[in-house]
Amino acid sequence: MLIPVILSGGAGTRLWPVSREGHPKPFMKLPDGESLLFKTYRRARRVAEPGEILTVTNREYFFLSRDEFQLALPQEAETPTFLLEPFGRNTAPAIALAALQVAERHGAEAQMLVMPADHLIHDEALFARTVQQAAALAAQGHLVTFGIQPTAPETGYGYIEAGQPVNTTVPQGNHVVRFIEKPARERAEQLLAAGNYLWNSGMFCFAAQTMLDALQQHAPEVLHAARACLADARIDHTSHATLVEIQGESFREAPDISIDYAVMEKSGQVAVVPGAFGWNDIGSWDAVRSLSEPDTDGNRTTGDTVFVDSHDTYVHNSDDRLVATVGLDNLLIIDTPDALLVAAADQAQKVKEVVKALKARGHEAAQLHRTVARPWGTYTILGEGERYKIKRIEVKPGASLSLQMHHHRNEHWIVVKGMAKVVNGDEEIFVATNESTYIPATHRHRLENPGLLPLVMIEVQSGEYLGEDDIVRFQDNYGRA
Amino acid sequence: MLIPVILSGGAGTRLWPVSREGHPKPFMKLPDGESLLFKTYRRARRVAEPGEILTVTNREYFFLSRDEFQLALPQEAETPTFLLEPFGRNTAPAIALAALQVAERHGAEAQMLVMPADHLIHDEALFARTVQQAAALAAQGHLVTFGIQPTAPETGYGYIEAGQPVNTTVPQGNHVVRFIEKPARERAEQLLAAGNYLWNSGMFCFAAQTMLDALQQHAPEVLHAARACLADARIDHTSHATLVEIQGESFREAPDISIDYAVMEKSGQVAVVPGAFGWNDIGSWDAVRSLSEPDTDGNRTTGDTVFVDSHDTYVHNSDDRLVATVGLDNLLIIDTPDALLVAAADQAQKVKEVVKALKARGHEAAQLHRTVARPWGTYTILGEGERYKIKRIEVKPGASLSLQMHHHRNEHWIVVKGMAKVVNGDEEIFVATNESTYIPATHRHRLENPGLLPLVMIEVQSGEYLGEDDIVRFQDNYGRA
Repeated sequence: MLIPVILSGGAGTRLWPVSREGHPKPFMKLPDGESLLFKTYRRARRVAEPGEILTVTNREYFFLSRDEFQLALPQEAETPTFLLEPFGRNTAPAIALAALQVAERHGAEAQMLVMPADHLIHDEALFARTVQQAAALAAQGHLVTFGIQPTAPETGYGYIEAGQPVNTTVPQGNHVVRFIEKPARERAEQLLAAGNYLWNSGMFCFAAQTMLDALQQHAPEVLHAARACLADARIDHTSHATLVEIQGESFREAPDISIDYAVMEKSGQVAVVPGAFGWNDIGSWDAVRSLSEPDTDGNRTTGDTVFVDSHDTYVHNSDDRLVATVGLDNLLIIDTPDALLVAAADQAQKVKEVVKALKARGHEAAQLHRTVARPWGTYTILGEGERYKIKRIEVKPGASLSLQMHHHRNEHWIVVKGMAKVVNGDEEIFVATNESTYIPATHRHRLENPGLLPLVMIEVQSGEYLGEDDIVRFQDNYGRA
Repeated sequence: MLIPVILSGGAGTRLWPVSREGHPKPFMKLPDGESLLFKTYRRARRVAEPGEILTVTNREYFFLSRDEFQLALPQEAETPTFLLEPFGRNTAPAIALAALQVAERHGAEAQMLVMPADHLIHDEALFARTVQQAAALAAQGHLVTFGIQPTAPETGYGYIEAGQPVNTTVPQGNHVVRFIEKPARERAEQLLAAGNYLWNSGMFCFAAQTMLDALQQHAPEVLHAARACLADARIDHTSHATLVEIQGESFREAPDISIDYAVMEKSGQVAVVPGAFGWNDIGSWDAVRSLSEPDTDGNRTTGDTVFVDSHDTYVHNSDDRLVATVGLDNLLIIDTPDALLVAAADQAQKVKEVVKALKARGHEAAQLHRTVARPWGTYTILGEGERYKIKRIEVKPGASLSLQMHHHRNEHWIVVKGMAKVVNGDEEIFVATNESTYIPATHRHRLENPGLLPLVMIEVQSGEYLGEDDIVRFQDNYGRA
């Protein structure tokens, strides 16, 4: 039995302004319209049933993740399991938690396929076959890594030195001589030339018990903390998923350490399977650029762009905004509704410094997008000015916002698509497409989509004070009251 | 008597996307919040009364220009005169029309001060004193140009070779030896080194009769066409301005020629007054950049910007959008709500090629902004999507939109500031701040601001078809029914 374990964490700050804390890299849509998490889930489903898939992520991302999974395979009857962390730690605690869960639910011999949610794999059929090879080695008690044949002297990846073949019964598996941390340029060139060094992809395959034994031997404090976390965890079975909510108090005791450092670099049981399936960790905008085809000047764009005397420039357009470039060379222009990035492509790694600067300033654009996901749907701020703020609100079929009240703002609701059920003071009414209703300040109100299609509404707020904190929640379906 | 003649034409395509056909360079706000036309009008008022100021512009820009003048000096009792052209010609026909008008209204000896509306002058008091010197030379029958002492080997300007002093009674006036067209770089360096060459600013001072005589001698066909245009013109006296509307049929006969080419380069009466008042023709974004103070890395910004490892980069922000730059050098980033320009500063002149490309595609962003000026105020498209479009509508005190009707769209109007008077079908109602009303498709309706303060309204359109062409106008105060 092979259990996919999806690790969905990491802010992806080098992909700002599309990747932000509230909507990080795994949820980012690629040029083909699919998110990395969506692709990872579909890849997991090639080797396992939905009830066998385990996702470790921050609890803030549960609703977003569940939506991506439903989008990937909407007809699933079985429900996936989520290990929800209260805050980010590193990969060792996450894998320890997952190994304990897998051993308990599927037996100590069950194998785990650890897949970070932010990798792109081109040949998914070949990937599935490579996983079978890894699983065969895992069955022999190995901790198996997936090594990628380097195509360039990359300084952004760790390397694995491949040694002798593990055995002759399983082809294409080698002992690992050692792990090498991200090298300097010159060293990277040597590793590339040597031929027996592979990129460390961060994907692994092993039996749950093999990992638990290795943790016990090399990082017992991680295993101990993970056991305590699971003893404390709140388990919740919903119609869409099984949730294992790790509590902050116990999780804080888990060491902030990577699985490479805690186990892989210390164990003698590590093997590597070379992966030729086409791998990209989408580490920066430079990597995103390479996903689309250039024109004859080397320029690429996702939308409405005029290039004048420009070369090797990538434009990531937002909505229907037009972008024009004049005399540019090797630039990245990443446009979003509320923030724009212009970066030299050869300095794409430094984009994370922008996020650092924004956080230092307490700037909202480090965390939130103009469109914000909520358990019930999304809202988008379309405009704000003196005495008004306008939102587009989309409510999922059957979903409902909290019963709430504002002290200062009046709200005008105009339904442009679907049907709304509205509590407004003592009244309960239906508002159909093209109709509107008015919620005066101090009225208790609730918006619900009673239909089978999405509800789209324009909300115009007016009044002296329009801050998001002017809200009193009386009742909420998502535990926010 | 000195009559300022403001020439307000030219699309300013090198300043796209802020300058566009519907809102060109003279209306562009500088970092100090004032437009070039506003500044030009205020400069004109230093030397003349409002009733003596003549503005030559396209008739499309009348309402916008009038608003700028009222903004500059709201208390004016006298009204300025506008010569409204049906389409753009060159400076010779415009100056001929103005000279005929000035001679007729103020007498043949009246002097004209020709001022392009898109120049920036730093020391306005010194400019006024220089104008007095020019006027003294004009009184002696000279066609006086204003020459600017060059500070760099500019290839974007024409040059004037200054000869002997005109006479000793008027200081600082020289005969003009010749005009030199925009030179190549090497030639420009020679002219700068020689010391007796000045930039041709495009500003002039002369008696109306002197110009009429010179036109008769050197360009009689221009004068003839101008006379025919004025014979055909529709004269309109409104409470805000006197309008002389030139008709297309007669104006088409006017040769498309500059005053330099038609008269100045041919006449022996030309003198030059050196101007040390600080002059900038704001010809490109590079010139706009120079108007604000750089930080220690040479970067400049008008708004919310994070610079990382960037130098000599200019960011012109739009609204509240954040801009981040990484690893840039000498770039111009011009952000507007619907279009973004990123250009190498040393290629700022090529921005006009973007506009050329947009026009070839029939792209709206060559002509219109997200905010569109109308005689009654402005509207801004805040957002549009499937089945909805949202506008912010601002109506001037006392102004009124046309009585109109739509076949397909329903409109929800929410007043967020001020008071609206609304005709809706057979009803006439007042809608106060925070209130709303609903105009179903096929209802005749009209919006009016009966108050003394601006009216701000959010309009949410909903329906199957939301094109601007779904409008039937029954009655309009601005002749558009």
